[in-house]
Amino acid sequence: MIVHSVFFRLNHPAGSTGETAFLAKAAQLSNIPGVQNFHVLRETSPKNPYAFGLSMEFTDQAAYDAYNTHPDHVAFVQNIWLKEVAEFQEIDHVPYRAA
Amino acid sequence: MIVHSVFFRLNHPAGSTGETAFLAKAAQLSNIPGVQNFHVLRETSPKNPYAFGLSMEFTDQAAYDAYNTHPDHVAFVQNIWLKEVAEFQEIDHVPYRAA
Repeated sequence: MIVHSVFFRLNHPAGSTGETAFLAKAAQLSNIPGVQNFHVLRETSPKNPYAFGLSMEFTDQAAYDAYNTHPDHVAFVQNIWLKEVAEFQEIDHVPYRAA
Repeated sequence: MIVHSVFFRLNHPAGSTGETAFLAKAAQLSNIPGVQNFHVLRETSPKNPYAFGLSMEFTDQAAYDAYNTHPDHVAFVQNIWLKEVAEFQEIDHVPYRAA
């Protein structure tokens, strides 16, 4: 299982309708095949500039790759993400197993 | 529930005994009162410089604060983390609930 997450801040003011609308559109990514355990998150640490996050799980790299190239994901990135996100950091992880 | 996580890379070479020893010491943080659902993670995204992560959950901010100030955590940060970690990013999150 791969956990894919991204933490970000928006160009929209906090509490604005633009912010709410962005998060609602982002939540639609959960409908793309292969996406499991999808969550919209509020980032709370003062030690980074991010305000929100998205997290989701994929069974394997093939499912992750299929999500990345799915037309709905590509359209979201091109038409919404790139215009409305000011700054972001992707973090992906799997369990660590000691050698 | 607050999810506290930190992603990092070490001064130790990949696969070294120093790396293994660091991660074993980090795993001992799970014994501090209030820490729930503790995981050592392997960070897999090529879009950041981090190689590992730690994640844990706290019931509330008071439990998180108690962890931060616990002598075992303070000693780990001072004696191990600051010497062996090259670069890191903390990420904390709670569920987002639309207004």
